[in-house]
Amino acid sequence: MMTREPFAVIGGDLRQARAAHLLASDGFTVHAVGFDSDIEMGSDVRRARSVADAIHGCRYILLPMPLTTDGESINAPFSCNTITISEVFGTAVPGQTLFAGQVSPTIAQRAQEYGLTLVDYLKREELAVRNAVPTAEGAIQLAMEELPFTLDGSQCLVVGFGRVAKVLALKLAGLGAHVTIAARKHSDAAWAQVEGYQYIPTAQMEQAVAQADVIFNSVPAMLFDEKVLSKVKNHCLIIDLASKPGGVDFETAGRLGVKTIWALSLPGKTAPWTAGAIIKDTILNIIEEATP
Amino acid sequence: MMTREPFAVIGGDLRQARAAHLLASDGFTVHAVGFDSDIEMGSDVRRARSVADAIHGCRYILLPMPLTTDGESINAPFSCNTITISEVFGTAVPGQTLFAGQVSPTIAQRAQEYGLTLVDYLKREELAVRNAVPTAEGAIQLAMEELPFTLDGSQCLVVGFGRVAKVLALKLAGLGAHVTIAARKHSDAAWAQVEGYQYIPTAQMEQAVAQADVIFNSVPAMLFDEKVLSKVKNHCLIIDLASKPGGVDFETAGRLGVKTIWALSLPGKTAPWTAGAIIKDTILNIIEEATP
Amino acid sequence: MMTREPFAVIGGDLRQARAAHLLASDGFTVHAVGFDSDIEMGSDVRRARSVADAIHGCRYILLPMPLTTDGESINAPFSCNTITISEVFGTAVPGQTLFAGQVSPTIAQRAQEYGLTLVDYLKREELAVRNAVPTAEGAIQLAMEELPFTLDGSQCLVVGFGRVAKVLALKLAGLGAHVTIAARKHSDAAWAQVEGYQYIPTAQMEQAVAQADVIFNSVPAMLFDEKVLSKVKNHCLIIDLASKPGGVDFETAGRLGVKTIWALSLPGKTAPWTAGAIIKDTILNIIEEATP
Amino acid sequence: MMTREPFAVIGGDLRQARAAHLLASDGFTVHAVGFDSDIEMGSDVRRARSVADAIHGCRYILLPMPLTTDGESINAPFSCNTITISEVFGTAVPGQTLFAGQVSPTIAQRAQEYGLTLVDYLKREELAVRNAVPTAEGAIQLAMEELPFTLDGSQCLVVGFGRVAKVLALKLAGLGAHVTIAARKHSDAAWAQVEGYQYIPTAQMEQAVAQADVIFNSVPAMLFDEKVLSKVKNHCLIIDLASKPGGVDFETAGRLGVKTIWALSLPGKTAPWTAGAIIKDTILNIIEEATP
Repeated sequence: MMTREPFAVIGGDLRQARAAHLLASDGFTVHAVGFDSDIEMGSDVRRARSVADAIHGCRYILLPMPLTTDGESINAPFSCNTITISEVFGTAVPGQTLFAGQVSPTIAQRAQEYGLTLVDYLKREELAVRNAVPTAEGAIQLAMEELPFTLDGSQCLVVGFGRVAKVLALKLAGLGAHVTIAARKHSDAAWAQVEGYQYIPTAQMEQAVAQADVIFNSVPAMLFDEKVLSKVKNHCLIIDLASKPGGVDFETAGRLGVKTIWALSLPGKTAPWTAGAIIKDTILNIIEEATP
Repeated sequence: MMTREPFAVIGGDLRQARAAHLLASDGFTVHAVGFDSDIEMGSDVRRARSVADAIHGCRYILLPMPLTTDGESINAPFSCNTITISEVFGTAVPGQTLFAGQVSPTIAQRAQEYGLTLVDYLKREELAVRNAVPTAEGAIQLAMEELPFTLDGSQCLVVGFGRVAKVLALKLAGLGAHVTIAARKHSDAAWAQVEGYQYIPTAQMEQAVAQADVIFNSVPAMLFDEKVLSKVKNHCLIIDLASKPGGVDFETAGRLGVKTIWALSLPGKTAPWTAGAIIKDTILNIIEEATP
Repeated sequence: MMTREPFAVIGGDLRQARAAHLLASDGFTVHAVGFDSDIEMGSDVRRARSVADAIHGCRYILLPMPLTTDGESINAPFSCNTITISEVFGTAVPGQTLFAGQVSPTIAQRAQEYGLTLVDYLKREELAVRNAVPTAEGAIQLAMEELPFTLDGSQCLVVGFGRVAKVLALKLAGLGAHVTIAARKHSDAAWAQVEGYQYIPTAQMEQAVAQADVIFNSVPAMLFDEKVLSKVKNHCLIIDLASKPGGVDFETAGRLGVKTIWALSLPGKTAPWTAGAIIKDTILNIIEEATP
Repeated sequence: MMTREPFAVIGGDLRQARAAHLLASDGFTVHAVGFDSDIEMGSDVRRARSVADAIHGCRYILLPMPLTTDGESINAPFSCNTITISEVFGTAVPGQTLFAGQVSPTIAQRAQEYGLTLVDYLKREELAVRNAVPTAEGAIQLAMEELPFTLDGSQCLVVGFGRVAKVLALKLAGLGAHVTIAARKHSDAAWAQVEGYQYIPTAQMEQAVAQADVIFNSVPAMLFDEKVLSKVKNHCLIIDLASKPGGVDFETAGRLGVKTIWALSLPGKTAPWTAGAIIKDTILNIIEEATP
């Protein structure tokens, strides 16, 4: 049985604020820093005056996802002051466990030099799977906002068949869309068929592209070049969910008048509460596994 | 077999413009009037210079939904000039069939005095059923836009179990929401159970209200009064889909800090192409039935 | 609030035995007669020695569905003795309420002459809706048993779109079958489309017949005559769920080598526990509605 | 583009007969041996008089799944004569490709000694995925046949979350059952949740066992020992889908009066046509991949 040892939550966006709130609701003592007083976290979260104040006496330190975008300042959009990795690593002591999302090898190396245990929760499979839900819903919301017709009855082409694509296909079908999967492997074809979708090999994608009302790309490779883009219907919308460099030649799309949206980091934007709950659950899974 | 006799399409919003486009794509000759030149209808639709010009020689005359809001001027938001019912009825001749949505008894009486055949397509069951789809999707889009969490995994209470509620419940469940139906009849309870939803009698609705993350009301009766509104969770959103007078005491909701949206006429707003296709199909059904 | 007044359960098949068991589990005193000692009803059900013994002092008398097939002896396949309607009606007294399924006008008249209140629970909409579930599952079981291929991926034609057809279509689609609905009304077409099925007007049914791997008929009219039967594929199976006279010319089907099953009264055969629960719930609904 | 070179189909059950039929329908020349004249394969399949006759001049040789159960005679239940591996391997020549299911290392070694290319199609992921469909449907059919209640509304516990369990859960939910997944990994928990099922860690399975109406086991490990079996409800049915040694202590189950079915090799039994189509498609995938 897991004991409820105290947490410091340092920086991050609404997801981390929500995670802090949920940890406190679960009975953990939570000291938060790096959040403006306007950011709601519930009355059970204690607002620390400084990083040192937050970290002192805590068993666990929850850091944001991504941890940093410049390699030194911690991603804390709601903080009045800059918080640095040096400050956190210099204050923490061995015996504390730090959790952060998207940790670069350099940062991992620095944590090691400080003698600190730093776990990258973005590497956890269950987080990736569950994050596919707010990503898929966010993509659906974007499509609904842009399209002058319903997803119900529309031809949706989903390119790729990884986690996000699978969840998206499930939800599109649940809304009454006709879903075609473009993927490469025979086993993807088998799963697509088993789950009730049309399937087309990526190599023959062009004919499906020409029939689609909406295209959702999840493959981070340049599949939508001029040749493919020239096949899409006038009214077709392409939503690219692939992380950088993305899968669409946006410049050419613009020139051809093809409507595109590059939708990144949807969970934090469209469903921060859900994304915060996923982070919290994942952290607790990690702790539970480490508990003898 | 139905012959393709010519249509005049007079006024209306993007739905009517779409219906005109689709009739032309089906091979009908279409003369349209009351649409700004910016409104796209495809190159097959002929733009008439006047109502008389449009009506002349047409077998069918398609009028908007609703036909009018003031009893005399035809609902034509994209028209430069006002078009009146008197003008249309005075120009049309017996032998032409007029189609309009939401025809008041007074207008029906006037059509009769002119010796005209005027059919209210809003009374058609298939139109009402199919319109439930864009209504449901529009409501889902609104919920997604407002909520900081996903519909997936959320507790959704759907009040009523008519056409809109049925379609909405199906789509919410398809998105992974937990759906509870509040309705009155034992047969509604049976259908709700058969379709996989929780059911609660409307009379005991309060306990379901207290557990809901989102509430969709489809019943045009004052169910959400102060007593019920005081039960909803802090973060709960109420979307009222009931036509006037609605089912929510919005003033009290505002005072209590309950988030509400009164969402009317969603098909025309969020999916005019779909709504236009539904009007077109319904008109053709009516014509086909009348064809010996 | 409903008080739990005693029940006599007289005759019937496993459904009535199950209803007796469930009433007892709900806290009702239950006196049962007309069931062999082998028929399990749980230890809370009291076995009466005679009809008079069972009826005496009971507020409610539950009779089978169908009540009788010969007009006089009560349908009691597990009874050692014959139980007659005269015996039951002669023993019951005004103030007791009798429940039976499928009551003929003659029997209703006789009950009235005895001054008795006799309610036909088969007329209840919620019973009909919920009975569609075991009927649909039973039909699916029959199809699975007969077919050398999976329902998943098969072309299923469902003729009619009433309660049984709707539930069956839902479950077939849930198993991964491709479902086409043949029905007559435009509103049926609209619902079929909204619920994600293909639709074909009954008048054009022949082309769908020719593509079907399995056909489920729910319409009690001779739709499957020689002309239609001659269109079905070699391996196609027709399951007729329509009550007498059925919808298939079985003689011609036999001659043409078309595989057919006429599947009647499935709930009692394939899922008597479920069917018994439905009867019990319906009776309690009736009682609750009658309670001031 | 794949050229259609001739096939020999040697032995096997109805699945192989169906595969032969489908290959012929696809335009391949097919020589079949090892099938009684009663076994229908369509008129396009040529019946060979001997193994040598069948093999001669064929590019591909399709052998059964499993290839053999005794290590020497080929699994050919509909053959009048015994066909041996020695005979086939001795007749075939390098340049021909042999396909067989479940090839032991010994047999693979022998093929190599003969200089033959022998591919085990049972190792193909797409075959395993697609075979999960007839397995799941077969399990559902068994459950329907045994249970006195509908799967709709029942509590189904699915143990494991591999291919068969995933497809089974999907179909049970599609029939209206309440599905709980017992599995071990956090990522399984995440997927189960995303796909709409309840989840319980295998370690805490006992409480889910006690609430189940039907249990489907897919894990080939002794999970259902006396301790667990003693928790199941009286009416609960356990269907064990795990290959040998299975996951249920059947002897103890018998002693405790727990109803169990050990359901092995369902695809060939309940849906040989589907299973044959899967074999055929997989073989063609293998050939296509090998084609430059």
